Amino acid sequence: MAIKGVLLDLSGVLYVGSDPVPGALPALQRLQSSGLPLRYITNTTRSTRRDIYTKLKRMGFAVREDDIFTAPGAIRHYLGEHELRPHFLIHPGLEPEVADLASEDPSAVVLGDAGEAFTYERLNLAFRLLMDGAPLIAMGNNKYFKEADGLSLDVGPFMAALEYAADTQAVVLGKPARAFFLSAVAELGCAPGDAVMVGDDALADVQGALEAGLQGILVRTGKYREGDDAQIKAPGAIVVDDIGAAVEWVLAHA
Amino acid sequence: MAIKGVLLDLSGVLYVGSDPVPGALPALQRLQSSGLPLRYITNTTRSTRRDIYTKLKRMGFAVREDDIFTAPGAIRHYLGEHELRPHFLIHPGLEPEVADLASEDPSAVVLGDAGEAFTYERLNLAFRLLMDGAPLIAMGNNKYFKEADGLSLDVGPFMAALEYAADTQAVVLGKPARAFFLSAVAELGCAPGDAVMVGDDALADVQGALEAGLQGILVRTGKYREGDDAQIKAPGAIVVDDIGAAVEWVLAHA
Repeated sequence: MAIKGVLLDLSGVLYVGSDPVPGALPALQRLQSSGLPLRYITNTTRSTRRDIYTKLKRMGFAVREDDIFTAPGAIRHYLGEHELRPHFLIHPGLEPEVADLASEDPSAVVLGDAGEAFTYERLNLAFRLLMDGAPLIAMGNNKYFKEADGLSLDVGPFMAALEYAADTQAVVLGKPARAFFLSAVAELGCAPGDAVMVGDDALADVQGALEAGLQGILVRTGKYREGDDAQIKAPGAIVVDDIGAAVEWVLAHA
Repeated sequence: MAIKGVLLDLSGVLYVGSDPVPGALPALQRLQSSGLPLRYITNTTRSTRRDIYTKLKRMGFAVREDDIFTAPGAIRHYLGEHELRPHFLIHPGLEPEVADLASEDPSAVVLGDAGEAFTYERLNLAFRLLMDGAPLIAMGNNKYFKEADGLSLDVGPFMAALEYAADTQAVVLGKPARAFFLSAVAELGCAPGDAVMVGDDALADVQGALEAGLQGILVRTGKYREGDDAQIKAPGAIVVDDIGAAVEWVLAHA
């Protein structure tokens, strides 16, 4: 086994809130210097890809914007392929990225991590569209993420609420969707089995990657909580302290 | 088989929004004149029992306040029995009914149909309490109810959201909880099998009643939608057009 490419989750791995995780800056530099193909893969749906790029740069991470894979990118592809007119229930910060897609006569509901924009009124509007037969498309199914002041609800719980209410099942794009991992791996230029995913979400990052045929490393930073390891049912997960230790492992197995 | 007592759901059976269901006023009068024991059993958690009573009276229904069984009543009993200090995420209209119970140092989360009060911030606060080990107690698990302008999300979807996020399972009080039906039946003074529940919610009302050993009648008013009948997995459900037809059926089987 030799690692030939790396996928990195962003929030909780490289940073928490607006601050780099301790040791993340030199760890990423070291990984970049190794020459291993590297992509960033995130379900963060509170900001556009440009905003994510700008934020990383401001914190001192030297990334290329094109190397960031986002769930909204996958959604755009899916909507086009299925000729769907979306109604968005997403974070205001993401709206610029999809403004050209929104429809007055929607045939699908697209759900992101809308945060404070998850009002009863907006959830009810989405619910009524689902009851009229619109499919539900979710930008990931993550349960929660870590902010500076604690854990916060991600898109998954609101997806679960709408699924329960309308007796439907969401199409999940973004992690842990297999297709999402594989499209990022395709850019690494290696086989899925030679790629490794590093993330702080036991299910969306690590379990998802393992199920898509990648290798998976869980870091104990960000949203990680004692015992999360046990949620990973697929065999082969590596668990390390942080991105520094993950890079260590990757380089030792490259 | 002879019916010896009747449980009636309120919203969607006797009224929708602020108006009586057509024919509901004479139907209830006829049932009351029959002398059959009668109780009202509701998961409505947007108002106090007193408010529900007042509303029914204003619409012309002659009920006794003591005959109305509400989920908050069941919650109060449960909290006392388990010595729990509740944090409430409920509708402002219900707050007066439980104001004496709320705690600054909560050991449980109590969830009602909070409506507009379901903000991201409040859901997140409840979520964090659950992650700290507080149990989740829900006033019913109804998916939606019917308002004048369409279907609206009830407590169930928000329960499902918090269950998914915190990887927990709610204790459901109110319909379809067996204990809730049986405590109302106890007041009817008959055996569960001789009591019939009339409701517009296929799952919370009819399926729940059948599972608790009662008979169950689904009315095609309120939130009823074509095909709801098929959701009832327990055998023996009666399906009729409205409360008028339900009363007809009850009197024919009394």
